[in-house]
Amino acid sequence: MSPAVVRLADCLDPMPAVLAFDVFGTVVDWHGSIEREVAALGLGIDAGAFALAWRAGYRPAMAKVRSGALGWTKIDALHRMILDEILERFGVAHRLDDAARRSLNLAWHRLDPWPDVVEGLNRLRKRFMLCTLSNGNLGLLADLSRRAGLHWDLILSAEVFHHYKPDPQTYLGVCDVFDVEPARMMLVAAHHDDLESARACGCRTAYVERPLEFGPSVANDVAPRPGNDLHARDLGDLARQLGC
Amino acid sequence: MSPAVVRLADCLDPMPAVLAFDVFGTVVDWHGSIEREVAALGLGIDAGAFALAWRAGYRPAMAKVRSGALGWTKIDALHRMILDEILERFGVAHRLDDAARRSLNLAWHRLDPWPDVVEGLNRLRKRFMLCTLSNGNLGLLADLSRRAGLHWDLILSAEVFHHYKPDPQTYLGVCDVFDVEPARMMLVAAHHDDLESARACGCRTAYVERPLEFGPSVANDVAPRPGNDLHARDLGDLARQLGC
Repeated sequence: MSPAVVRLADCLDPMPAVLAFDVFGTVVDWHGSIEREVAALGLGIDAGAFALAWRAGYRPAMAKVRSGALGWTKIDALHRMILDEILERFGVAHRLDDAARRSLNLAWHRLDPWPDVVEGLNRLRKRFMLCTLSNGNLGLLADLSRRAGLHWDLILSAEVFHHYKPDPQTYLGVCDVFDVEPARMMLVAAHHDDLESARACGCRTAYVERPLEFGPSVANDVAPRPGNDLHARDLGDLARQLGC
Repeated sequence: MSPAVVRLADCLDPMPAVLAFDVFGTVVDWHGSIEREVAALGLGIDAGAFALAWRAGYRPAMAKVRSGALGWTKIDALHRMILDEILERFGVAHRLDDAARRSLNLAWHRLDPWPDVVEGLNRLRKRFMLCTLSNGNLGLLADLSRRAGLHWDLILSAEVFHHYKPDPQTYLGVCDVFDVEPARMMLVAAHHDDLESARACGCRTAYVERPLEFGPSVANDVAPRPGNDLHARDLGDLARQLGC
């Protein structure tokens, strides 16, 4: 039986009240958006590789915060630290002054949603409370959502909990905010490690396929894996499976 | 010259980028909403007086948190502590069991907006980033906003900053979230003490008249006072003054 036709009643009791969405990769196409902005600068570098390098610096930077080596630091500031480093690595540090770097760093506030997102969220919102649960900071998420027309009931971020995913304080923090048991919160994400950490907290999980998250040159395995309550091709498919 | 016809260019340079709204009293009619829910219980008590008593317990309860006598406690929990106390005082504690108290406590998640709010916010949102800055907790604000159809760019709460207004960490916290100087954040509120505290942080302030905040039996002076950048009859008037 394909996960897409699993019967809800078989796996979701109780039904979730809150759907919490990972954002980078799940809701928005960071690779395509960053690549486009970098290419527009005409630096003569491989913009897709630059986007991947920028993103690759993200997890180690957060790890410094998670380990306590670095105090609480917003993603905006982490993105800027990584940007300064990779501009050197790509040999174009001399091409961008501080103002240009500030502007480029804000490209993360201008990420485009995947094509199914606006309509999918509108359908899901009729039945569920929708929130973000992103490592992106609140201002970034507010800018991005306003620009893309994403209507959340609540924007939640690692910034609210002063813990980055996959720390359990983030998933359990969402449950606390909405005063629901973990079993009534479902994380929606395109990343199995995020979903596994939510599941370890007792939350429900829905995997969303984003085969192009890392661009067309990087293979991204989106095959179903055991453990997730739902596996959806996109948010329209998720809405259908959840009866919206 | 009436404050309502003051020229913006005379007082607002730079123009604010972010409008942060107080919620209880400014955006929603807590008195009328709580009175209605209490009256519907048929307890044979003065529902308007009960609403006033419930609200009167709010500031002392927050003061315990602000002083450190009580650890961080959400408004939902403070509301419940006050409710338990005033049910005794009104002689009806025996009429409501725990489930009934939980349900009544959630009346604060179901407060109705003043009639000008939905349209006023929609007009203001075309030009400004709109957020809440409320002592209400995030879940309360999300429920209330969903029910009333209020579309914020971001819901911010004392819960994010672990400080209650009028602690400066709240006003400055909004500026930090949006990465703006205090002069580019304007607090919109129906309470002069809230506005004064924001002003002390360097923020702009707009006073909104809510003559019926405490119900028809309590006189509420809404006359203009010096110090505020703007004085508006309601959110429609504020939108007009801000060129929306």
